[in-house]
Amino acid sequence: MLKLYIGNKNYSSWSMRPWVLLRQAGIPFEEVKVRFDRDADSAFQKTVAAVSPAGLVPVLVDGDLAVWDTLAIAEYLAERFPERALWPRDTRARARARSVCAEMHAGFSALRSHCPMNIEATLPQVGALVWRDQPAVRADVQRIVDMWTGLLEQHGGPMLFGEFSIADAFFAPVCMRLKTYALPVPAPVTDYIRRVGALPGVKAWVDDALAEKDFLDFEEPYRTAR
Amino acid sequence: MLKLYIGNKNYSSWSMRPWVLLRQAGIPFEEVKVRFDRDADSAFQKTVAAVSPAGLVPVLVDGDLAVWDTLAIAEYLAERFPERALWPRDTRARARARSVCAEMHAGFSALRSHCPMNIEATLPQVGALVWRDQPAVRADVQRIVDMWTGLLEQHGGPMLFGEFSIADAFFAPVCMRLKTYALPVPAPVTDYIRRVGALPGVKAWVDDALAEKDFLDFEEPYRTAR
Repeated sequence: MLKLYIGNKNYSSWSMRPWVLLRQAGIPFEEVKVRFDRDADSAFQKTVAAVSPAGLVPVLVDGDLAVWDTLAIAEYLAERFPERALWPRDTRARARARSVCAEMHAGFSALRSHCPMNIEATLPQVGALVWRDQPAVRADVQRIVDMWTGLLEQHGGPMLFGEFSIADAFFAPVCMRLKTYALPVPAPVTDYIRRVGALPGVKAWVDDALAEKDFLDFEEPYRTAR
Repeated sequence: MLKLYIGNKNYSSWSMRPWVLLRQAGIPFEEVKVRFDRDADSAFQKTVAAVSPAGLVPVLVDGDLAVWDTLAIAEYLAERFPERALWPRDTRARARARSVCAEMHAGFSALRSHCPMNIEATLPQVGALVWRDQPAVRADVQRIVDMWTGLLEQHGGPMLFGEFSIADAFFAPVCMRLKTYALPVPAPVTDYIRRVGALPGVKAWVDDALAEKDFLDFEEPYRTAR
């Protein structure tokens, strides 16, 4: 059975991507949750280093093979389960899907640093200040709005490339951020965020995140308590 | 004919990766070099935005299809030219190669920010200060040393996965950085850097970079002139 090592569900946006992908695609896996910590004698570091030399979550373990980093995990799963069409089947759409996922993987640093994922929080006032003061966040959101509206128009929805694909799993944490910080986006984007939230794979993750109730101060730049 | 949009060869580490991959694999392509600028009326931005919504180099253009971001370009080429075996043919090795490439794609930020690629420069004193003062750079280099020595041992060299693959193209700019800043690495790593530098595809890029002679101050945190 595949094993997926992940961090805290409320905070770990990178863990969310392959978890949602596996769950939504109906691929059975065992979850190994490793709580984030910052202890000198870090249990997180020890546990993760035992399976992956990069020392980061997520890690997918298949027998004695460890695959790390979200994009490599996605490609591995797409190859291992070709019948699930995790990438779009059309060559051009697949190239486009890989382009936007890779863009997400290395980009959007302003949005990521100013609006860290925090599923159970509701922070519209923080979002309003970030929006007012951080032009780089506004630029990141503008690029996302252009990308999503363009893809939804081109492929007709309901997901970015028609049917659910790796691309939707990759942008699911961005949906969470836009919602938590109530950043202003046009109606087609709000509707897409709602549809992503209604996917059973996403809903299962969000339910777990809400049940987690594990407040980690180093993941909370905007709150002192829940 | 494939077209590859790239930035300045002396500075653009992301452009170097698919260019070296294409050249080393013997895939014909046309290079479109777009000089970096920071003008208000940026010719770079206009040229790149005309082909890619992300507005960054590199961009691969195949007919009327644009593929952007280095990893997506690599995957696209691997699919389009399966006979070239751009990824290792073995499933496990391929998963590992994708893991280290994705790790590079989103990581090593300390090395990347403190030791920007500058092929024609020789900056051992800068490197010595960075090495002394930046523990995060030392950690990045340690991870690279562990990764490379482990892969070279496991696959027997001369490249990371035996034969040349996307992984070597991905780490070619890291070889350039380690050399420019003369960062201390063990002999097997020095030897690998030498072998990468001797690949015809890498040599061709480096020769072009040396001939470029286009000093851009915003790419030069450590020099005022060539």
